[in-house]
Amino acid sequence: MVERYALEPLKSLWTLKAQYERWLEVELAVVEAYEEVGIAPRGTAEKIKDKAVIDVDDILAIEQIVDHDVIAFIKSVTKNMGDEARYFHYGLTSSDVVDTANSLALVRATDVIIESMLRLSDVLYEKALRYKSLPTIGRTHGIHAEPTSFGLKFLSWYAELLRNIERLKAVREEIAVGKLSGAVGNYANISPEVEKIALQKLGLKPTPVATQVISRDYIAHLISIFALIAGLIERIAIEIRHLQRTEVLEAMEPFKEGQRGSSAMPHKKNPILCERLTGMARLMRSYAQVAFENMALWHERDISHSSAERYVLPDSTMTMYYMLEKTRYLIENLKVFEERVKKNIDLTHGLVYSQRVLLALVEAGMSREEAYILVQKYALQCWETGESFKEKLRSDTRINQLISDEKFEELFRPDYYLRNVEQIYERFQK
Amino acid sequence: MVERYALEPLKSLWTLKAQYERWLEVELAVVEAYEEVGIAPRGTAEKIKDKAVIDVDDILAIEQIVDHDVIAFIKSVTKNMGDEARYFHYGLTSSDVVDTANSLALVRATDVIIESMLRLSDVLYEKALRYKSLPTIGRTHGIHAEPTSFGLKFLSWYAELLRNIERLKAVREEIAVGKLSGAVGNYANISPEVEKIALQKLGLKPTPVATQVISRDYIAHLISIFALIAGLIERIAIEIRHLQRTEVLEAMEPFKEGQRGSSAMPHKKNPILCERLTGMARLMRSYAQVAFENMALWHERDISHSSAERYVLPDSTMTMYYMLEKTRYLIENLKVFEERVKKNIDLTHGLVYSQRVLLALVEAGMSREEAYILVQKYALQCWETGESFKEKLRSDTRINQLISDEKFEELFRPDYYLRNVEQIYERFQK
Amino acid sequence: MVERYALEPLKSLWTLKAQYERWLEVELAVVEAYEEVGIAPRGTAEKIKDKAVIDVDDILAIEQIVDHDVIAFIKSVTKNMGDEARYFHYGLTSSDVVDTANSLALVRATDVIIESMLRLSDVLYEKALRYKSLPTIGRTHGIHAEPTSFGLKFLSWYAELLRNIERLKAVREEIAVGKLSGAVGNYANISPEVEKIALQKLGLKPTPVATQVISRDYIAHLISIFALIAGLIERIAIEIRHLQRTEVLEAMEPFKEGQRGSSAMPHKKNPILCERLTGMARLMRSYAQVAFENMALWHERDISHSSAERYVLPDSTMTMYYMLEKTRYLIENLKVFEERVKKNIDLTHGLVYSQRVLLALVEAGMSREEAYILVQKYALQCWETGESFKEKLRSDTRINQLISDEKFEELFRPDYYLRNVEQIYERFQK
Amino acid sequence: MVERYALEPLKSLWTLKAQYERWLEVELAVVEAYEEVGIAPRGTAEKIKDKAVIDVDDILAIEQIVDHDVIAFIKSVTKNMGDEARYFHYGLTSSDVVDTANSLALVRATDVIIESMLRLSDVLYEKALRYKSLPTIGRTHGIHAEPTSFGLKFLSWYAELLRNIERLKAVREEIAVGKLSGAVGNYANISPEVEKIALQKLGLKPTPVATQVISRDYIAHLISIFALIAGLIERIAIEIRHLQRTEVLEAMEPFKEGQRGSSAMPHKKNPILCERLTGMARLMRSYAQVAFENMALWHERDISHSSAERYVLPDSTMTMYYMLEKTRYLIENLKVFEERVKKNIDLTHGLVYSQRVLLALVEAGMSREEAYILVQKYALQCWETGESFKEKLRSDTRINQLISDEKFEELFRPDYYLRNVEQIYERFQK
Repeated sequence: MVERYALEPLKSLWTLKAQYERWLEVELAVVEAYEEVGIAPRGTAEKIKDKAVIDVDDILAIEQIVDHDVIAFIKSVTKNMGDEARYFHYGLTSSDVVDTANSLALVRATDVIIESMLRLSDVLYEKALRYKSLPTIGRTHGIHAEPTSFGLKFLSWYAELLRNIERLKAVREEIAVGKLSGAVGNYANISPEVEKIALQKLGLKPTPVATQVISRDYIAHLISIFALIAGLIERIAIEIRHLQRTEVLEAMEPFKEGQRGSSAMPHKKNPILCERLTGMARLMRSYAQVAFENMALWHERDISHSSAERYVLPDSTMTMYYMLEKTRYLIENLKVFEERVKKNIDLTHGLVYSQRVLLALVEAGMSREEAYILVQKYALQCWETGESFKEKLRSDTRINQLISDEKFEELFRPDYYLRNVEQIYERFQK
Repeated sequence: MVERYALEPLKSLWTLKAQYERWLEVELAVVEAYEEVGIAPRGTAEKIKDKAVIDVDDILAIEQIVDHDVIAFIKSVTKNMGDEARYFHYGLTSSDVVDTANSLALVRATDVIIESMLRLSDVLYEKALRYKSLPTIGRTHGIHAEPTSFGLKFLSWYAELLRNIERLKAVREEIAVGKLSGAVGNYANISPEVEKIALQKLGLKPTPVATQVISRDYIAHLISIFALIAGLIERIAIEIRHLQRTEVLEAMEPFKEGQRGSSAMPHKKNPILCERLTGMARLMRSYAQVAFENMALWHERDISHSSAERYVLPDSTMTMYYMLEKTRYLIENLKVFEERVKKNIDLTHGLVYSQRVLLALVEAGMSREEAYILVQKYALQCWETGESFKEKLRSDTRINQLISDEKFEELFRPDYYLRNVEQIYERFQK
Repeated sequence: MVERYALEPLKSLWTLKAQYERWLEVELAVVEAYEEVGIAPRGTAEKIKDKAVIDVDDILAIEQIVDHDVIAFIKSVTKNMGDEARYFHYGLTSSDVVDTANSLALVRATDVIIESMLRLSDVLYEKALRYKSLPTIGRTHGIHAEPTSFGLKFLSWYAELLRNIERLKAVREEIAVGKLSGAVGNYANISPEVEKIALQKLGLKPTPVATQVISRDYIAHLISIFALIAGLIERIAIEIRHLQRTEVLEAMEPFKEGQRGSSAMPHKKNPILCERLTGMARLMRSYAQVAFENMALWHERDISHSSAERYVLPDSTMTMYYMLEKTRYLIENLKVFEERVKKNIDLTHGLVYSQRVLLALVEAGMSREEAYILVQKYALQCWETGESFKEKLRSDTRINQLISDEKFEELFRPDYYLRNVEQIYERFQK
Repeated sequence: MVERYALEPLKSLWTLKAQYERWLEVELAVVEAYEEVGIAPRGTAEKIKDKAVIDVDDILAIEQIVDHDVIAFIKSVTKNMGDEARYFHYGLTSSDVVDTANSLALVRATDVIIESMLRLSDVLYEKALRYKSLPTIGRTHGIHAEPTSFGLKFLSWYAELLRNIERLKAVREEIAVGKLSGAVGNYANISPEVEKIALQKLGLKPTPVATQVISRDYIAHLISIFALIAGLIERIAIEIRHLQRTEVLEAMEPFKEGQRGSSAMPHKKNPILCERLTGMARLMRSYAQVAFENMALWHERDISHSSAERYVLPDSTMTMYYMLEKTRYLIENLKVFEERVKKNIDLTHGLVYSQRVLLALVEAGMSREEAYILVQKYALQCWETGESFKEKLRSDTRINQLISDEKFEELFRPDYYLRNVEQIYERFQK
């Protein structure tokens, strides 16, 4: 965990104390289930609940001796219990508790993350609407291509985020599984019925077949979706970093009152938040790699996944959440310099309209190949010289014969490129 | 592509020729759509189809000059066309063709892969049923834990495969999108209606918002699911490699008539297929990494994803398919040495029943903690000496008072552990 | 950072306080250099040192406002200074301090890690010597191959560790670079001479060309070597996990007095340390991935590497160190069951001598191909039936004619395979 | 292998035929060594050489039966041999041949790659010299920072390339190892002396301790260095992509006569080569990941690394070479628009001189903190309004009192920032 990137409520979710509380939550649900099926006397869970005290230091001290975290937990928590202690952890193996509690943590973290995504999606949609009619230059390969709608940038992110929300919601349902089936997953000392009742109390379903543990494909799936979300955030961050470049300066991430960009250069306003998000996306990808490697456990389980998960589960969920929250802040407070956006369209002195000229020539009867060669020739000349592309073209008599002055004016207008944009937005009406 | 791992039909799917054919397929669908909306004269697509010749060498030769593969393709294919050529690629940008054709290839590859998964699932289920009642020793941490059902190994893989089939089917629907929206995705020179009609002909839907390209989250999602499937196959392969170990020898991958295990050691029968699959899983994970990195393109697109995809798309789909086909062959022809499976349960001279003894003592009134210490003491002694655990325990008078001889016999029987296995299988009734 | 895996002295190295102390160390070295070249009055550094107080909370509070950690540091530390404050951070940019201090931390961490490797190498060498003459069965593909020396396992790890020590020492020299060359690395407001003097005081050399930062290839190189070391540790851990398998049980990782292997199964002794190390190796690989991605910064630097490094630098060095320390403990306290090691050689009833028989037949005049087919035939039969391979072979008259009884006895002895082992050890004489 | 990215001589190096030829090369070297030590009759190797025919199809056909590539190779190659065949592969195991031949291939590939790096380094150095005195604006975070030398960009890449050359040369020496020590690496049927002689003939040394195979740390080290080199190339490619952006246009990758940038937009000149290299860097990182995972083989080896290496060894070396060759072409033919480079310095109307003003105020007696606040205030105003920074500052009377007009002129000149650049270059005098 990196302190500065740990936001509530996820930060509290991953404390050792919270982990022990979840373990207790699972143990209690099982005792309650035992009561329901008549194995434990009514009231046992209540008694246990009353007497159970989670003393983190005591648990850690015991772990020093037994070298097993769940056993240490049980020993500590049941210290002051009477006869009811015999139903505590009854019929269970450690992984029943650890893995089921793990699912609780991941489900809760994922719910927080989905909420954050929904908030981000609202903000993206709002910006998409706001800038729908603002023409901007579309850039492919970093080179000016053709005008388009500035709002489409946001709409494209919004659409991708919606896909990610659907994906994560599906995984959230997937991972809401527990297992209370004993040492090798065959319900030797606990019944499927008890498992079902206990898990239901926790909002989980039984994983259909477990070994000692829940298969690690669930977690790998979850974290690979996180990597996808991080990939979108990286895309957003890189776009804004590009737009904030001094030479472009069409947008800028929020710069707070009192903020300083550089210890040496007082004039600097740097997209540090976007850069931070870019770096974090690399981490999120690397977590997916670990999660993939964690899948192929030996036989009915080995515990190699555990050390890796102690890093990756808290860090991936906390970083994911941080990224989403900061992206929302970023988009919400993004400065867009509309005049500059519009002005930049003309930086190439009209070259970006080359396709329209090409198509106009084709429509007027020229072959595509011939038109291409002609238009490219003038375009590359203007690229070198900085001359007006329109004027250059009009100086060619063949072109002048095929395209009227009026038509020429029409060909060099950005609004043409926004004609059909409304139809894209219609796909997202709420 | 590694020749020896390239199986049909995927091998043919990824030839250059097949790629150009898909490009033509897309171009033709667009012309047909233009006919339908009345822009191109009826019969144009038919004429184009008649005259279009895909000459791979010619296209490559042109590409040498223009340094652009789609332009080379267009120039070559339209060579012998008449006036209808003007509707070829009309209003499109290269990526409209490339990305839409790419989706076709991925959808088709995925369909082949799903079919292969379904076949594998049948085989796994069949083996799960066959070995349902075969008791085996469950192993956790590589150490004998408690008896369980040998069939559960297969059922666990089967359950995970079913999850993967659902995941891949969902992604398959997701990736069945195309884009025919022009240079920066704003339908400047083509209408959403034409896109919709053309894509429908190809079995695709429009991606809701495109830049010049379809967002790369789709492909990253696909390949990360491949990594999950590969993770399952690795799990299967590692299990069988373990079972085939000389010391375990409970199962063996097929060893063909005439096969040789080693140039030096004639006695060797090695699980080379399982090892091959293990290595391939590493590749599949690495492809996911590339696909994640390919997502954050600049502005309305950069083409950095393209070189990477030239490796990763063919190799990931072909390797995935190879892995699945070989895994099916492996499972179908797996030799299981049932006698050895049963015999291995007793390798520890009864230690694996320690939990049952523990629980019996607790039921008979001993505290869990006291019972644990007692049972562990004798267990660790027997671990060292190889003595019979049952006899050791019976030599303790306290234990003898609490557990009858009859009960003792019952505690040391593997079938107890299979009592509830049927209930796990019931979750999968077809 | 995962608390339970953070060992001293690295844990203290990565606290926020220690980081600020290193920053101060760098700032002071620069002031001292300014004194030496006559820019700052003699005694300035001393005065600054006297008055500089590192107040972590104060720095963090200022950072909340200025959103820049180095500026916050400077403001806080210089609070009580007089005129000498003007020489504090004079001519520097933040990254001069951060990156140079970063190098200090990495060099110090690497020194600790190299020391740990050296200690591990001693332990490995000692075990290699101790088990040099203990015959064991070599296993390839998990299948018994031919006898070899148990000590060679350790010697092989030792040899690989020596390579890693050389690699890490080389990188340690590499990364001992700083940069004090200002905002874009061109020494605009500081001279190369001042840089050289200041860095020398810190035990560093100037990186030959810097942008605003030191190029990230250094760190990527360092962490990729960590991944190599982790790969070796994983190899060791997996070997021991295999040797500790119930069916093999040739070795066992230390099991402490009072330790418990399972909450459910009192008999369990699991290789949990080895499994923990295995999982950590996955993390170490993933850190390398992040470090590789961190290299391609924009222009004269972007800060995307920074957020990722806040996780990866502390976690990779601390985890690397933990892995090494635990591996040493593991090897030092490893239990080797020598009798079992020897006994396992005969598990195949002599099959492992098949190559010797093959070569004896070839030497006696049979063609290699013919001999292979014959020996393989009997070997595979014995594999199925468990018969004695030697007896089986002797029942074949052709073989009996070519190989004498005496020769047969000699062919089936493990010590033959250790003949040349001494020569391998001679390569490592200290 | 991707056909279009496979360049000679590496393409030929990785054909199946070339692989078999290397295997024969190794087998022959061993026979020659046997001759030298007196085991094989003089002339045996010569005879074998004469009769050995590599018939790829025949080998593959045999492999279909024996399912083992080396055995198939031996059977096919020795077909027409007489008695000398008995010395062919004598005392060897398959991996002796495969791994030693593998080293040959990797050493040869690496030599080609190092040559390519050296050629690239010349080109980079030359460009560094050519543009040493061309002032350009340094950019940090994508934002104009301070002027610097355009040549330093190349010098920075050159310096990093030199480091990579050193690293790769070191690895090249490292990987020049073979192993001819038999089935489990203990020289059971071959002597260390024969190994040494044979390897010497091949330009290799014995790896100090082998299992059945050479430890995979060598290859992992090699490929991780490739990933470093690829990271540098990505850095170069991204810089040029940035410089070629329409808004910046300070440099441009070569655009060939006849080349077309877009099928739709005739005006486009895209940095497609740089983008291609960017994508390839992702691949190179992913290969390192696979190579790291390939290290932890079971016991005396498992063959899981093999399938992965069939992809990764050819593809990583060929892609690495392609990247280097193309980068050299790129740098050699890079267009630099010097006028534009100089002009861009003033895009911020002087803001980039803010540090110099800050330092001048401090020198003139103002406190650093006060000066920072003042300069930042005016800088941010000018950022918004586009006013001249110099004029703005001069309108402040306090500043005017501290800084003379003459001094002001001096503060706003780019050549100041190049004062010390020569000293950086001096570090690289050839």
